[in-house]
Amino acid sequence: MKKILSFDVGGTKIAYAVVDELGQFVGEVNKTPTPKSAEEIRLFFQNTIRQYYDKIDGVAFSTAGAVNAEGTRIISFTGNLPVGYNQTDFLSLTDKPVVVENDANSAGWAEYALGAAQGCQNAVILTIGTGVGAGIIVNGRLLKGKSGAAGEMHFPIDSGHKRRCQGCGMWDCFESFASGTGLGKFAAEILGDGATGYNVISGKQQGEPKCEQAFNLWQDYLIKGIITLGNIFDPEAVVLSGSLGALVEYAKVEAAVNADILTPALKLYPARFANDAGLIGAALLACKKLSETV
Amino acid sequence: MKKILSFDVGGTKIAYAVVDELGQFVGEVNKTPTPKSAEEIRLFFQNTIRQYYDKIDGVAFSTAGAVNAEGTRIISFTGNLPVGYNQTDFLSLTDKPVVVENDANSAGWAEYALGAAQGCQNAVILTIGTGVGAGIIVNGRLLKGKSGAAGEMHFPIDSGHKRRCQGCGMWDCFESFASGTGLGKFAAEILGDGATGYNVISGKQQGEPKCEQAFNLWQDYLIKGIITLGNIFDPEAVVLSGSLGALVEYAKVEAAVNADILTPALKLYPARFANDAGLIGAALLACKKLSETV
Repeated sequence: MKKILSFDVGGTKIAYAVVDELGQFVGEVNKTPTPKSAEEIRLFFQNTIRQYYDKIDGVAFSTAGAVNAEGTRIISFTGNLPVGYNQTDFLSLTDKPVVVENDANSAGWAEYALGAAQGCQNAVILTIGTGVGAGIIVNGRLLKGKSGAAGEMHFPIDSGHKRRCQGCGMWDCFESFASGTGLGKFAAEILGDGATGYNVISGKQQGEPKCEQAFNLWQDYLIKGIITLGNIFDPEAVVLSGSLGALVEYAKVEAAVNADILTPALKLYPARFANDAGLIGAALLACKKLSETV
Repeated sequence: MKKILSFDVGGTKIAYAVVDELGQFVGEVNKTPTPKSAEEIRLFFQNTIRQYYDKIDGVAFSTAGAVNAEGTRIISFTGNLPVGYNQTDFLSLTDKPVVVENDANSAGWAEYALGAAQGCQNAVILTIGTGVGAGIIVNGRLLKGKSGAAGEMHFPIDSGHKRRCQGCGMWDCFESFASGTGLGKFAAEILGDGATGYNVISGKQQGEPKCEQAFNLWQDYLIKGIITLGNIFDPEAVVLSGSLGALVEYAKVEAAVNADILTPALKLYPARFANDAGLIGAALLACKKLSETV
């Protein structure tokens, strides 16, 4: 049974664990605050790999940033990680096989291989946290595009010059509305300055009309984006992951999407794997690569 | 050398020709007005196939409507064709191998296999006529989705409740702006009732400011949609086909798209094949299927 040391690298913390080829954890999932410099991150990777070296067949990284089509390096900025992290030479960290994949793609692959989208040859997995990431499965393979950067959820979805996205610089893209950041803006607009997405969520649970209004505005943009992806990909399933993915009104959103798409009805599911999806998905991709190159 | 009798079925006319496995016409491209009933269309297919029977290895149909993933039948409405046409049992027309594909997918395949997108593993080919159709290539294969209906260009792109699309019923979808129908609406809005897209095109060629304004509004929505498709697919190339595809300002649109997409720059090309793309693409798909099943 192949075993992979898998890292999930985010701006605040790095999670890591050994994952076997069935997607099961061997031992605990460990977490550490993300070191403050790219060099410290590199040393942390090296030390941790050394510690597990004898027990593993390869190393996987689920990371912020777009990853090249070969799965070896980051090709974009990685905003909330230390300067220079996106230049990390992952292959030089160890002589074991290494696979690098974007975190939303890793999470998407976990849901496709073992989770809510299992058995679907065409699926869209959205990770909705501070931003919106997508892992898209076409004909049983990850959609990567020419460079690896496919699946950017920055498509225009409004025209009112309402929001300029800090991620892409455009006005009114999907992510600027349907992300956690987007929910926070609805909070400020409707509840007043200083209100946050957390206020909306807790107020909605207590039946506060203004919080319901803000939540519904946010969810309506999510619906618009899922219609776009439904019409373009005709997927069996759309899976919602991430902290906000868990709070979506599934039956209502699925019905609204299916009322408007031209393609046959799709299924909307909550993700099976919560925070561990990146660790598991990257490890499974590494196992796949190992078995293809043997 | 395999030879395919290929039909391109539209609301006004049916084109047909024998095409070899290199995409070359063997003899002329013939055209006939589309018969007025589904039964007459079926008889026309049968008679024509009988006429060519001894010289061909298979039959291909490039048709309006979404086609199932197996390439055997239509699974959607086909608005401007006679009632019942979409129920046509293509496989029963002949004992030769038959392949059916959507016309925009067929045109996309022709551009991918032999045209402007040759050598691209990821490409988006938009056919812009009365509506907007897409043939999308992912990892060297047509994007079909779970049912075959993938690639619908009906995604919301505005929010002003400006236009309700007659194709999908939604407000403000891409096709309602970027199609020939969409250009016609800009014409009426800016030049006055009764003005058409043709007025815009001829007036623009003469430097009429209002016609340039209408054309630019139309082209700006086209740019928005290509940004969406660029960010989602990270394609090497976007190819524009169809009567309006030929009139786009390529350098300007390519620069505007590449200024806003997050993925690495894409190339924008005019289609190589004009009206024959459907005939050629469907024939090549039939040849591919023949060689896979032998």
